[in-house]
Amino acid sequence: MMDYTYGKDELENWLVAEKSFSAEQLGKVEAVFSLGNGYMGLRSATEESYLDEQRNLLVNGTFNTFSSVEVPELPNIADVTNIKLAVNGERFTLETGEYTDYVRYLNIREAELVREVDWTSPRGKQLRLKFRRFVSLDDLHLIGMKVDVTNLGAEAEISFESGIDAQMTNTGSQHFHEGEKRIYDKKYLETIQTTTESGIDIAVLTAHTLKVRGQMVFPEPKMDIDRRKMTISYAVKLGENESLELEKMSVIHTSRDREWERKDYQLAEMRKVALADLKASSEKGYEHSFEAHKRAWENKVWQSYDFSLKSKHAFDLLASRFAIYHLTVMVPAHSDKMGIGAKALSGEGYKGHSFWDTEIFILPFFTFFDPDIARSLLTYRYHGLTGAKKKASDNRYEGAMYPWEAAYPSDGEVTPVWGAVDIVTGEQTKIWSGFIEQHITADIAFAVYQYYSATNDTDFMETYGYEIIFETAKFWSSRVEWDESQQRYVINGVIGPDEYKEHVDNNAFTNYMAHFNLSLAVHYYEELSSKDSDLFEKLDQETAVSDAIFKINEARDKLYLPQPDKESLIIPQDDTYLLKKELDITQYKNADKVGKLFDDYNLDQVNEMQISKQADVLVLLYLMDQTTQPFDPALKQANFEYYEPRTTHDSSLSLSTHAIIAADIGNKALAYDLYSKAVQIDLGPNMHSSDAGIHAASIGGIWQIILFGFAGIRIHGQKLTVNPHLPDEWEELSFVFNWQGQAIKLEVRQDGFSLTPMDNQEITFESGGKVYTSNQAITL
Amino acid sequence: MMDYTYGKDELENWLVAEKSFSAEQLGKVEAVFSLGNGYMGLRSATEESYLDEQRNLLVNGTFNTFSSVEVPELPNIADVTNIKLAVNGERFTLETGEYTDYVRYLNIREAELVREVDWTSPRGKQLRLKFRRFVSLDDLHLIGMKVDVTNLGAEAEISFESGIDAQMTNTGSQHFHEGEKRIYDKKYLETIQTTTESGIDIAVLTAHTLKVRGQMVFPEPKMDIDRRKMTISYAVKLGENESLELEKMSVIHTSRDREWERKDYQLAEMRKVALADLKASSEKGYEHSFEAHKRAWENKVWQSYDFSLKSKHAFDLLASRFAIYHLTVMVPAHSDKMGIGAKALSGEGYKGHSFWDTEIFILPFFTFFDPDIARSLLTYRYHGLTGAKKKASDNRYEGAMYPWEAAYPSDGEVTPVWGAVDIVTGEQTKIWSGFIEQHITADIAFAVYQYYSATNDTDFMETYGYEIIFETAKFWSSRVEWDESQQRYVINGVIGPDEYKEHVDNNAFTNYMAHFNLSLAVHYYEELSSKDSDLFEKLDQETAVSDAIFKINEARDKLYLPQPDKESLIIPQDDTYLLKKELDITQYKNADKVGKLFDDYNLDQVNEMQISKQADVLVLLYLMDQTTQPFDPALKQANFEYYEPRTTHDSSLSLSTHAIIAADIGNKALAYDLYSKAVQIDLGPNMHSSDAGIHAASIGGIWQIILFGFAGIRIHGQKLTVNPHLPDEWEELSFVFNWQGQAIKLEVRQDGFSLTPMDNQEITFESGGKVYTSNQAITL
Repeated sequence: MMDYTYGKDELENWLVAEKSFSAEQLGKVEAVFSLGNGYMGLRSATEESYLDEQRNLLVNGTFNTFSSVEVPELPNIADVTNIKLAVNGERFTLETGEYTDYVRYLNIREAELVREVDWTSPRGKQLRLKFRRFVSLDDLHLIGMKVDVTNLGAEAEISFESGIDAQMTNTGSQHFHEGEKRIYDKKYLETIQTTTESGIDIAVLTAHTLKVRGQMVFPEPKMDIDRRKMTISYAVKLGENESLELEKMSVIHTSRDREWERKDYQLAEMRKVALADLKASSEKGYEHSFEAHKRAWENKVWQSYDFSLKSKHAFDLLASRFAIYHLTVMVPAHSDKMGIGAKALSGEGYKGHSFWDTEIFILPFFTFFDPDIARSLLTYRYHGLTGAKKKASDNRYEGAMYPWEAAYPSDGEVTPVWGAVDIVTGEQTKIWSGFIEQHITADIAFAVYQYYSATNDTDFMETYGYEIIFETAKFWSSRVEWDESQQRYVINGVIGPDEYKEHVDNNAFTNYMAHFNLSLAVHYYEELSSKDSDLFEKLDQETAVSDAIFKINEARDKLYLPQPDKESLIIPQDDTYLLKKELDITQYKNADKVGKLFDDYNLDQVNEMQISKQADVLVLLYLMDQTTQPFDPALKQANFEYYEPRTTHDSSLSLSTHAIIAADIGNKALAYDLYSKAVQIDLGPNMHSSDAGIHAASIGGIWQIILFGFAGIRIHGQKLTVNPHLPDEWEELSFVFNWQGQAIKLEVRQDGFSLTPMDNQEITFESGGKVYTSNQAITL
Repeated sequence: MMDYTYGKDELENWLVAEKSFSAEQLGKVEAVFSLGNGYMGLRSATEESYLDEQRNLLVNGTFNTFSSVEVPELPNIADVTNIKLAVNGERFTLETGEYTDYVRYLNIREAELVREVDWTSPRGKQLRLKFRRFVSLDDLHLIGMKVDVTNLGAEAEISFESGIDAQMTNTGSQHFHEGEKRIYDKKYLETIQTTTESGIDIAVLTAHTLKVRGQMVFPEPKMDIDRRKMTISYAVKLGENESLELEKMSVIHTSRDREWERKDYQLAEMRKVALADLKASSEKGYEHSFEAHKRAWENKVWQSYDFSLKSKHAFDLLASRFAIYHLTVMVPAHSDKMGIGAKALSGEGYKGHSFWDTEIFILPFFTFFDPDIARSLLTYRYHGLTGAKKKASDNRYEGAMYPWEAAYPSDGEVTPVWGAVDIVTGEQTKIWSGFIEQHITADIAFAVYQYYSATNDTDFMETYGYEIIFETAKFWSSRVEWDESQQRYVINGVIGPDEYKEHVDNNAFTNYMAHFNLSLAVHYYEELSSKDSDLFEKLDQETAVSDAIFKINEARDKLYLPQPDKESLIIPQDDTYLLKKELDITQYKNADKVGKLFDDYNLDQVNEMQISKQADVLVLLYLMDQTTQPFDPALKQANFEYYEPRTTHDSSLSLSTHAIIAADIGNKALAYDLYSKAVQIDLGPNMHSSDAGIHAASIGGIWQIILFGFAGIRIHGQKLTVNPHLPDEWEELSFVFNWQGQAIKLEVRQDGFSLTPMDNQEITFESGGKVYTSNQAITL
């Protein structure tokens, strides 16, 4: 069980702790406490090994394909975290001997993992141990580790075996050639490996320093080089109450690093830089490097976002900070060639692939808190046009058809074609998402629009954005199908966000979003062709949009948009959903019931019932609310009341949308309840839900709820609207967000809110139907 | 520590036991207790997992190359031995809780692995456990396992999780595509995988049956399919003193199986046969299948070889039986396309590659005890002519140059080119054996000669043997170099059996063996061309030996053979050995000192001293003693006395040769001492010497000492000589061996010996210089 109250005084609500250890439930803490900096993610497996551990070091963008029948995945990089510690030859492990005063915690503020324990070995040797670890936000290549050992008993020999282990695989799949191993000066261990198919060079280097009784010592190490593995061992004697400190500094460099993305890249050069980096970091030492890392977190995150919250449930503050922590840790701010995986970099789940999760559930956080990062994430999709055009042309469509799952931008579609074997029939199940879950293409176009609205970043639009809009619209104009009888375009045979309904016709979400995408293209076509002929000509050369515009226009005008029933106001999720059988699914709706539905029904049966995995129509309502054509509040309420009881929330993406709409329609209690459930997905008591990694979209969703639900921010075109719906439990909420280039402090209380432009520039916004303009704080 | 006295009564000297368990010293027992049947080898890792375990299931002949910079190795097949057992959710492991009455033993007679233990869980649940396991000699595809659990305390739930784990790698290298996984009828688990480069299909299937309180039960299993892994779980309640029995029967089939080595091979067909095999074996059950396996061992091995020994040290009987056990377990009697790896099938060491170890140290055992197997092993080398010719032509030589390390017959040379990195210089060390350790080619020719002498198997010679002799002689005739100044052929720049001397000229062993090979070719050429023109013509078409014979003859006549010094009688190991510095190496000579020399000297320094890794010249004397041109006993003694003190025996091959020569020269005490040391290599107290696998050649060497040393058997051409040198410790030694198609019982006592033809045919042999002929027992 997690402990949320371990942090006291200035660390109050900054620590997520574990107070007792279970060797059979390692995955939760490994993932939830995972460290990272967007460049790489390090799962928090312990220094000592346990049978059920899952060690992962994943470096963003280093995709490799094990064999032609598989898809690219982020390979598990050589491990540097394993340290075998022994006292008089007895190996340290919490499974033998006895321990007291155990705590392991993630310090969210300083992004440090700490573990403390007093351990008595089976033969009675007593040690006090403290382990610390960080993945630097200052030097993206750096992993710092420190082990403090105090001998609480009579003189004993403490020994360490530590190094680089490149025997790691992804559940058995090996992505690397063995490569080279070297030890320089009996101190600097270097492993150079190359991925088998994508040919990415990865250098992993590590160095140890040792202090005994406060003094640096240089004992002669024992060195072992094995296949794919290299260790260095030290042994020192400690008298009673004497201490030692072992520091292990490691650096990772790869040929995908921004600085090596050149035609004349030379491994020798990267190698030299990596070794110099290691030497400098090792010389600086843990504390010094950690200070720089702390400063980076303070400046880039905590001071910059200036987030504060007073809630009757102090945990809400911790949970919201926890979400900021993971959003920071997951995002590849350093490179616009990389996306965010569904499990971020905290586990092998979903192979590091990016889904619509990024654009719809994560991106808005960065759009408001760090627009440069949002721009970088969208630029990743711009680079992804290569793969998206390939996917379109492979499927005989025009323009850009974004992959349902994306890896490196040029890879195109990487959704596995075949899933788990049905253990009863023995047949492998086909995964249809890569073929027919097509809404992703419109989702990305929507994200471009939303980013542009919030930032007014015309440079982005001119360089990347318009091209994405035109190419995606071209896709839709070729994708829609003409229905002769109804004299309209339809979109048949798709999967919407609700993946419990495969092969449906006219999924409302898909059709409306496609329509929005087509409309954007028409709008920008008209705007640019009339106002900025230089830019338009450049874009037209690139996209041939003027050849396509007739078809785009046609598709927009004649695309069938499922209409709400006049009385009930319900928008049918697809052509047949409302005709299907109903089932009371109350018993399947709790967080600990995820997937339980399938103990009683199989997918074929679920397909024929009004049961949804997640808020399909509701996501549409939520997204359209961020445009100039929001749906009517009454319609929102009606659809919420219809669809929510039919939704299992088996998708971790579902809760945040419901929470926002619940807030919108004034049901603050329900909104808060759904927020609380969303927070539990990773932080809650289910000990195995995060084994394969944290839920990136769910964590993004927590901030969707805060921004769009509780703070009530809306972007209607280029207009900012703020209508807070603070839950009763929350007394004060405040943060600094960005709006069209300005930093604005928003402070919300139960009795009102204020907006303060940080730079004294004028700000215009709408609230309660009124427009306000000022260059000072406005309090309502 | 091993216990050799655990077997009582009829099991006396049949059990090798371990009485206490150490989770940090697993490798020894895993390898030494490993099971197998020549088709496959199964390392004896425990059912439950430990961090330092090494699970290996290796199937002979299934070589695959991970990547182009590596060499083929036997891939680690999907594991079926791991069974997670728990009581009320507490996982069984000897690292937690307490245990009493622990024993694990290998029953050599019945080739069964047994483990018994009473275990009390950390929460106080008490279980009595018995684990049994065999790899069938009756059905080569079958692995049988059985777990008996008795609940010694109050009612508790016993659960098992067990299946097929294909996440196995070879130290991180993955040789298989993920392949297919299926579960039929919730019972039969099937994994089909294909090697990545060699394209071998491997089917691993397993099924469980469960008896509770003596009754078969069919609880609903939980089934899990993960990436490369599939498990089935059962849970049953047991009252106090109630028992259950879990049987797990597994079968392995591959497309390299003899029955599938066809052009029209279809995976579907193999799959069908494998599933039928599994169903039949599972239905028969453990006891029934085990009986058939026991009978096979009794009939094929123990009754057939009829070995008995009375020694003052009862352990000698156990050790000699242990050697027979492993020789049986390692030899691929089922296929002449497969050899014996240096670590047999008991570990990943040496990648399953065959060296001269087979022909020189192992083959004679089979030549005498099971000539069909010896023929099969030599036929493997005949098939290997493909690779050997390729190696010769790659090196611009003629004929067949056998690879120093061999994998599949067509692979040719597979010695890794680069070895471990020198951790100080950072340079990888080049492994020269594959290029210049050339004596292997003559060793194989010698083995053909020896086999033919002992068996008179003319069919083998006509079909395979002559071709090997001619092709290898062609190689040597092209390999020798003309020394103009001395007007003779020399062989420069080689490594002899003593690998501590690289790049030497005229290594005596190599030159004499090459000369023997050339002489054999000349001899058979003359014999066949004059006596059997049909056969000769066929062979000449195949080998073009008549075009080559002039050069072969020349090479034989003019090849330099290093001559013994007239006074000292010492044969120089090579051109410079006797000129090198000397060093007293006493301190490096014990079994626990293997490799210790290199703590003080590096290979370059050792190269410049009179230090040998193994008996280089002495192996020559020993082998030539098995021909019609043995060296003089005085010369043998002089060379033994000169070289033995200079030999570290760092090679596990060295001791047996020295023991035989010690016996020859009448030093029975030393011979026995060396025998005792040879036996200790795997059975002795060094807990890590066998981690990478047992020492196949050393185990063969134990029987070389018994056959050629103690029993004093010699083959002088087609003549059998018997001059026993029974050690003082041994009272009686007897066995039945084969000589030219006859089974002969040899019984040796201190005061004489007898030879008894088992089939009443006449036998002729020589002893003490006299010739005896009889169709009845002759006692001397």
